Amino acid sequence: MASVDFWYEFASTYSYLAAERIETVAAEAGVTVRWRPFLLGPIFAAQGWTSSPFNLYPAKGANMWRDLERIAAGMGLPFGRPDPFPQNGLLAARLALIGADEGWIAPFSRAVFRLEFAAGRDISDQDELVEVLAALGLDGVALVDRANADKDVKARLRAETEAAAAAGLYGAPSFVTEDGELFWGNDRLEQAIDWARNGRLTTSVAAPETRP
Amino acid sequence: MASVDFWYEFASTYSYLAAERIETVAAEAGVTVRWRPFLLGPIFAAQGWTSSPFNLYPAKGANMWRDLERIAAGMGLPFGRPDPFPQNGLLAARLALIGADEGWIAPFSRAVFRLEFAAGRDISDQDELVEVLAALGLDGVALVDRANADKDVKARLRAETEAAAAAGLYGAPSFVTEDGELFWGNDRLEQAIDWARNGRLTTSVAAPETRP
Repeated sequence: MASVDFWYEFASTYSYLAAERIETVAAEAGVTVRWRPFLLGPIFAAQGWTSSPFNLYPAKGANMWRDLERIAAGMGLPFGRPDPFPQNGLLAARLALIGADEGWIAPFSRAVFRLEFAAGRDISDQDELVEVLAALGLDGVALVDRANADKDVKARLRAETEAAAAAGLYGAPSFVTEDGELFWGNDRLEQAIDWARNGRLTTSVAAPETRP
Repeated sequence: MASVDFWYEFASTYSYLAAERIETVAAEAGVTVRWRPFLLGPIFAAQGWTSSPFNLYPAKGANMWRDLERIAAGMGLPFGRPDPFPQNGLLAARLALIGADEGWIAPFSRAVFRLEFAAGRDISDQDELVEVLAALGLDGVALVDRANADKDVKARLRAETEAAAAAGLYGAPSFVTEDGELFWGNDRLEQAIDWARNGRLTTSVAAPETRP
């Protein structure tokens, strides 16, 4: 069965939208999803950015928030702007890597994104994450302790972030197919799944203008 | 009849794709299109960029070219990377403004984009633009002379670029509806037309994940 790597960052607004859509879109095409959290901070820093480009470039940022509002409304998805933005997703990302091994990474990640972008809460708050885990039937306190202490988990998140940079990633969400095609952005999700299934784009794009 | 402003820059790769699609997408929805060329250079300069962000950020640029290749292939549209990039679209934009008054702006603009991104030629070359105009049955030499000399045309392009910045534009292509909604990017074309027709997004977005 074809698969796609779903690279996401917990601070990323469009990663929230993609996390809400990807399992449905992929399942319809018979494609499996590998959830791969990483950190954008080191990648942005290497480009000379000290914050989100949505903060550095105000016109771009203003339209991003409006775009999110429009799309979330069109999806029937709750949306609230978190403060501060961007949030610190380090602990959530470490927890997600534990969840990748234990089979709860997808529902955990969606719950963290909803905490942040629907409820507008702070995802770097350990107590909030304990509650998210508990709602999934997990021992939140033990998992947060492990995410804070486990050197292997910390090293793995660093290695994943380095792998993302090495694969050419420069933003989130990004999707990488088994044959190495990189697609960037929630608006490329359908194309990435199409490519994962067919090895080329088949249905995602309209015909060009045929008039002279 | 609802209408949408189509803001584009002749140096912009994704403006090429949008120019090829917009009349078809808009006509299917019963929306009319106002073609509005402008210059991104002053807007980028105000953000501190001295070149295209696709040149300033190599990973982003590399993926943009690959994205273009994939989408153009999916559309059955010829695509070649121009050298140098970005090109100087000043004369083409002035000519297009004359074409807006005289009714040939859309086919002229599509022909310029194809010259640049399909044939890989230099759109700042006056002889190339004379040929483009001649192929549309126009007096290319006279029009190029006018575009180079007419102070009203030059002032109008400056005013259009200022209007674009005042409307919050920060990239191209962008689409603005009559009620002031700004949509950025070729991948937002369908949403912009949907909004122009319905005042909200109705069909362009998928349902969110419903699993826990």
